[in-house]
This record gives sequence, structure tokens and C-alpha cells, in this order.
Amino acid sequence: MLNKVEETYNRIKDRINQTPVMKSSTLNEMLNCNCYFKLENFQKTGSFKIRGALNALTNLTPELKDKGVTTHSSGNFAQALSLASSLAEVKAVVVMPENAPKIKVAATKNYGAEVIFCGNKSGDREKAVQELIDKYGYTLIHSSNDIDIIYGQGTATYELIKEVGKLDYVFAPCGGAGLLSGTAIAAKSLNKETKVIGVEPKNADDAYRSLRDGRIYPSIDPKTIADGLKTQLGDITFKIVQEYVDEIITITEEEIVDAMEFLWSRMKLVVEPSGAVSLAGVMSGKIEVQSKNVGIIISGGNTDLTDYFEGWREKVEKLKL
Amino acid sequence: MLNKVEETYNRIKDRINQTPVMKSSTLNEMLNCNCYFKLENFQKTGSFKIRGALNALTNLTPELKDKGVTTHSSGNFAQALSLASSLAEVKAVVVMPENAPKIKVAATKNYGAEVIFCGNKSGDREKAVQELIDKYGYTLIHSSNDIDIIYGQGTATYELIKEVGKLDYVFAPCGGAGLLSGTAIAAKSLNKETKVIGVEPKNADDAYRSLRDGRIYPSIDPKTIADGLKTQLGDITFKIVQEYVDEIITITEEEIVDAMEFLWSRMKLVVEPSGAVSLAGVMSGKIEVQSKNVGIIISGGNTDLTDYFEGWREKVEKLKL
Repeated sequence: MLNKVEETYNRIKDRINQTPVMKSSTLNEMLNCNCYFKLENFQKTGSFKIRGALNALTNLTPELKDKGVTTHSSGNFAQALSLASSLAEVKAVVVMPENAPKIKVAATKNYGAEVIFCGNKSGDREKAVQELIDKYGYTLIHSSNDIDIIYGQGTATYELIKEVGKLDYVFAPCGGAGLLSGTAIAAKSLNKETKVIGVEPKNADDAYRSLRDGRIYPSIDPKTIADGLKTQLGDITFKIVQEYVDEIITITEEEIVDAMEFLWSRMKLVVEPSGAVSLAGVMSGKIEVQSKNVGIIISGGNTDLTDYFEGWREKVEKLKL
Repeated sequence: MLNKVEETYNRIKDRINQTPVMKSSTLNEMLNCNCYFKLENFQKTGSFKIRGALNALTNLTPELKDKGVTTHSSGNFAQALSLASSLAEVKAVVVMPENAPKIKVAATKNYGAEVIFCGNKSGDREKAVQELIDKYGYTLIHSSNDIDIIYGQGTATYELIKEVGKLDYVFAPCGGAGLLSGTAIAAKSLNKETKVIGVEPKNADDAYRSLRDGRIYPSIDPKTIADGLKTQLGDITFKIVQEYVDEIITITEEEIVDAMEFLWSRMKLVVEPSGAVSLAGVMSGKIEVQSKNVGIIISGGNTDLTDYFEGWREKVEKLKL
């Protein structure tokens, strides 16, 4: 499978960002280990999702490319598929719920995709997507449960290990597990000894329970600030997680905020809650990382800062008084 | 003077971070130019100030090193001198006003310096520092008006140009002009053609007026969110600015917030108001940068995020209801 990750990387590398790797001497001293942060918040569209989206589109047959693709997403995958469709010159139609944040709708349109709105109820999205497929023959691109998406997401870890060398551990967030599956395939392909740890919010622990009990649990409206991690496993990601992921650990909402605060205040990085979950896992102490080389996948940085900057604008108004 | 900057760089480079350079395709498309961001928010202590502080301490005679140093600061220089004193193994006593933010006092102590508090009135700091000098023979290290500080700050631009090649423009924020003076010396030493632009808040435009009228104006309690840029020019920095800086432009408080928002939202970088001022200058359109290679010095990222994360913690509490 190493061939697959390498092949994928070579296919997409010129159209994505080679994101930087950073270290924090403060964190390394706290935990007495060597942590390497792979910063996908600096990736195009603000998250790792462009890697998989671009790979999936590039791999379509010419006939399917001509027909176009569709997906439903209110989050990072909508923007990623939109930009990927422009880069790969494939028509894309993204179904978004009517209550999706305006800023995300605008970004998705801006990258080039057509946006179609659907209702906000459970099932509305799938229905709208199915109608498009029936009518226009679009190919559905799932945000995580798709082997081309998975290989694409794996290229982040491939880049990381090629840059920093052998890792004892890699921590990645787990939602639908497209990123976690790709991380595991990339890490194990390069070195079987590297342990791959998935990190999931305790309040959205369906993947943790699925791995424990050997069956896929649904994810039903979980209460977490990590809104990118609410998706459940699919048949493909479940199988890869079972085979290649060493452990899934869970962390609290408070631990997510603490990890975010460390990233923002100490490391000066804007990271969204879902993106800080892997660091929260490392900081939780549930895995003994002392003296180890540890990769931490920071998955994205798309969080709405409108209110925060409204606060700055109010400060500026007050200065005038 | 190139020798001086190179010499300084070689002396301090192993004890500072070689900070990353980033680009923004969005900004480059907006302005039709090539902008290179030099990210000193990723520097040790969260700002460029460690460069100058370390250089100043390293250059002291053994006798003066034995006696120790002092300064007054409520901002980034306090932390920088504190860490520099630990790195250079020189005792440092930092005078801070009693109303200095607790988080900055804690950071300054944490890096190793002794902190002595003074009153909050104008003149209290200078008096307290003078008492320490008279009593213990400490050397005063000024945060900007000191040639060793200036050479040290210039190493950021030296690194930038060594990495990206010839620049047509460099934009740097202007407060006491330690950074701006160093930027100008470094840029002009490497290439006389490079234009150096200082950017100052309109509400704190003492340097702009000083350069225009050929005399140093005092900076009297300016109303700006860029709290790192309230200092006035000194005799040394004024002379260097007159000789090597091509122009000082001013920007509004609103433009500072817009530039910050771009850096945080689009580029995922935590940058303090003073650090965003150089980008605000570029975005203001006051200098024609079309088709040019433009360096933008992002000076620091130390802004208090306590309230912002309090907001996240409240969200987490609400999820429990």
C-alpha cells in the first residue's frame, strides 16, 4: 500500500500546499518527548480535505469526469471538493443545508462549485444528492468512506514522515475516519512499528465503541464543539481502522478547549476544535509518550471569527470617545 | 553595515528561531504582487524582540555582564530581555508598572528575570530604573534606541531576504523604530534599490511627523489598539530612519483590524494588532506594489486570548444542558 500513498502523493503534490511542520519546546519539556505538528490548517481551503478530494477527482475515468460529481457537506469537505473540482476541471455540485453558515456557503461558491440548498432535517441531504445523481448521472464523492479519499488524506502523514523521519506515534482526530485511515496506511507502510492513535471526543465516541465491539455504531447528534468529528464510520474506514489503527482514545470537551488554547496562545496558530483534538489526546496522558517521537496531525483551522473581530471593532469605536 | 548585520546574525542565530516565511495566494491575487510574510509571531517569546535583546546582552563587556542589566517594559521587550538574559547568562531586572497584565508579568518571571514593580504614572518607570542603576550599577538596555538592539532586529529581514531573494519593498511597523531601523539597515545593505516603508497607526503618528518635520515629536498617550507602537523615536533610531527609510505611511485603527482579520481568518495566524500594521500598510494601497516582490514583517503574536477561550468554555458548559 506504500506504493498507493506514494503514487497518490506524486499525483497531487503540485496542486496542494506542502504544509509546514512545527515543534514546541514548551510542549516537549512538559511531556519530555519530541512532538512534530503537521499543520494542515495551512493547507489550501484551511484543512487536509483538499488532499483526498483532489485525489478522488483525479482518479475518475474521463467519462465520469465529463458528467461531474456531487456531495453533501456543511463543513470543510464542501470547500475542499469545490476547489478540487476547479483544479481538476470537473463540474461539482455541493448540497448544503439551508442553515449552513453563510461564510462557508460563500467560500464553497467562491472556489467554483455550484451550491444547491436542501432542508435542515436528517435525511434531507442524502435525498437531495440522490435526486441529482438520478437526474444528471453525477458521481457521489463521499467525504471519508472512499478509498481514493483515504489515500489522499494519508499524504499528510507521508509528507510528515518524509520530512522528520521515523515516528514512534502518530495522533490523528477521528470523525468518519478518512483522515485516520489514511494516516494509519501511510504510517504503517513506511514503518510497521509506528503506533497510530485515533482521538475522538468522548461526547462523539461512536468510533471508539465501534472498534471495541467490532460493529459500526451510528453517530446520533453528538454534543461536541468538534463539529468536524460528528460523522460515523463507513464500511471501508471501519475495516481499515480495525486493521491498522492501534488504539482510539477519547477526550473531553474541556480538554479540546485547553489544547486549542495552547495552540493559539503559545504556538500562535489558529486551529479549529476538531483540529486540536489530536493534541488534546497527546496532552491527556492516556498514551505514554515519554522520550518518543510523536507526530500530531493538526487537521484544520476553519473557525468562524466574525464575533471575535466584532469585539475588536467595538474596541476601536470606544477609542474614539 | 552589512558586515554588522551578518556578524550579528552569526552571533545569535543558534539561540533564536529561524522563523518561517509564508505566502498568501489570495493576497497576491488581490494586489497582483508577490508578498512574503516574515513570521516573527513564531519567534521565541512571541515577537522579534528577542533578536535585539540577545544581541545587546551578548555584546556587553564581561564586567558589565557580571553586574547585570535592567529595563522597563510592560510589553514584548520585558519577556524578550528576560529570556535573553537566561540564554546569555546575565542577571536582568525588569521594571514593570503595577497595572501590567498578569499574564505578561508571569511570562517575564518565567523566562528568568527578576521583576520589580513601579507606579503606573508617567515617569515612574524611568525613576525606578534609575534607582536600580544608581544602586547596583546595572546597564540600561533600551528597547529600541540602541544600536545593538537595532542590528539584532535587522536579522529578521536579513533572514527573509537570504531565503526569498531580492525584494522591491519591505514593510515594517514603526513604534520606537528599533525594528524599522534594523529592517532598513539590513535591506539597504543587501540591496540599495529595496524600498523600506515604515507603517504607523494614524492615531500614533509621531514618527511620521518627525520624519516630515526633521525633529523628534513626543508620543503622548496615543489611542491605538497597536499597543506595541506607542513609543516615540530616540536620537539613534531617528537618524537611521532619516537616512535609510524611504517613507512612513499611516493607517487607521479599522485598517489594523481588517489586516488582523485577514491574517487570522485566511492565513490561520495569531498576530497582535502591532504585528498586523505592516500588512495594513500594504493593503492600504498608499504604495503602488503591483508586480513587485514585497516583504512584510509580521512582528509578533502576543495578544491576550483569555476572554476568547472563556467564550469557548461557556459553549462547552451549555452543551451539558
